[in-house]
Amino acid sequence: YFRLPVPARLIITILSITLLFGTIIHLIEPEQFPTVFDGIWWAIVTGSTVGYGDYVPLSTTGRIIGMLLILSGGGVITFYIAMFSAYTVKHEEDLSDGKV
Amino acid sequence: YFRLPVPARLIITILSITLLFGTIIHLIEPEQFPTVFDGIWWAIVTGSTVGYGDYVPLSTTGRIIGMLLILSGGGVITFYIAMFSAYTVKHEEDLSDGKV
Amino acid sequence: YFRLPVPARLIITILSITLLFGTIIHLIEPEQFPTVFDGIWWAIVTGSTVGYGDYVPLSTTGRIIGMLLILSGGGVITFYIAMFSAYTVKHEEDLSDGKV
Amino acid sequence: YFRLPVPARLIITILSITLLFGTIIHLIEPEQFPTVFDGIWWAIVTGSTVGYGDYVPLSTTGRIIGMLLILSGGGVITFYIAMFSAYTVKHEEDLSDGKV
Ligand SMILES: [K+]
Ligand SMILES: [K+]
Repeated sequence: YFRLPVPARLIITILSITLLFGTIIHLIEPEQFPTVFDGIWWAIVTGSTVGYGDYVPLSTTGRIIGMLLILSGGGVITFYIAMFSAYTVKHEEDLSDGKV
Repeated sequence: YFRLPVPARLIITILSITLLFGTIIHLIEPEQFPTVFDGIWWAIVTGSTVGYGDYVPLSTTGRIIGMLLILSGGGVITFYIAMFSAYTVKHEEDLSDGKV
Repeated sequence: YFRLPVPARLIITILSITLLFGTIIHLIEPEQFPTVFDGIWWAIVTGSTVGYGDYVPLSTTGRIIGMLLILSGGGVITFYIAMFSAYTVKHEEDLSDGKV
Repeated sequence: YFRLPVPARLIITILSITLLFGTIIHLIEPEQFPTVFDGIWWAIVTGSTVGYGDYVPLSTTGRIIGMLLILSGGGVITFYIAMFSAYTVKHEEDLSDGKV
């Protein structure tokens, strides 16, 4: 795991977090999140701060899980988006410098 | 309070802001926010810019409170997420450098 | 205007943008945004990317206004939030250095 | 294309991404997204993380498209907003330095 490049590990981290939180919320609120995929969709939509509101936890326990996802997982996805942005810019600059 | 490390103080700051705004909105719009926990959930969802829309202030006073939360509290939570991201990266780098 | 400090000018800029877009959207879609204050509330919620979804433009013209708000006004509010975060950190550091 | 300045290319990139994802989602879920413009509106609202929730993919395929938009396209729009913010600050500073 540690020999993988940072972006690959981060993608694995994001997938792990969304899989983890998606499964937990599916187990805690099976009526609101009928499938694990519903939970994963909610975890990505929440962690990226898009927050459609199509899936929302209703119980106190579910909301505390949601708060933990927002405060911790959100940081990782936000960082990934920032890093992806940086790569986009770098790639654009390399293109304009004729390196690619 | 001032002897605590910056991250600990920030978490206290975030909890204080969400507790403060959550209580205020519960008092201003008790029908929309029946419990203080509903208000705290709204404050975290709003301050992190997730914004599900499951809890929204309807009165003019409530919306002005919401604007203040977005403009001030949002900055602190955003910073916390950014800082958390930075720690994640730092930790990832330390892991790949074999420091941990 | 130019003699004011940068933060004061940015707050004036944000208030101007939200007032401008709030008034425009109220004029374009008076049924969706019955008052100018509804429009201003929508402009702040949208520009900060909170995006509750309680007020959403339905017409093509209204949505193009929304896209312009997201792409331009959003940048200013985002910057303000970033700057506010920076001030918070700076203030926290000054507090821990005993400067305040 | 490569001779254009970076901001112009990024705007073209954003328009291409929103047009691409907007068309794809319209083709995959024509009942949820009746027109291509509905798809483009969804792509900008999602990519900017505003996320109103007025248009949301319901099928598994549509949600995977949504995840890809959030993880990739979101980065570009986020970067654009950040860059726009930077220009705003730079312009503000130039104004206060009397360069404009
Ligand atoms: K939202
Ligand atoms: K949002």
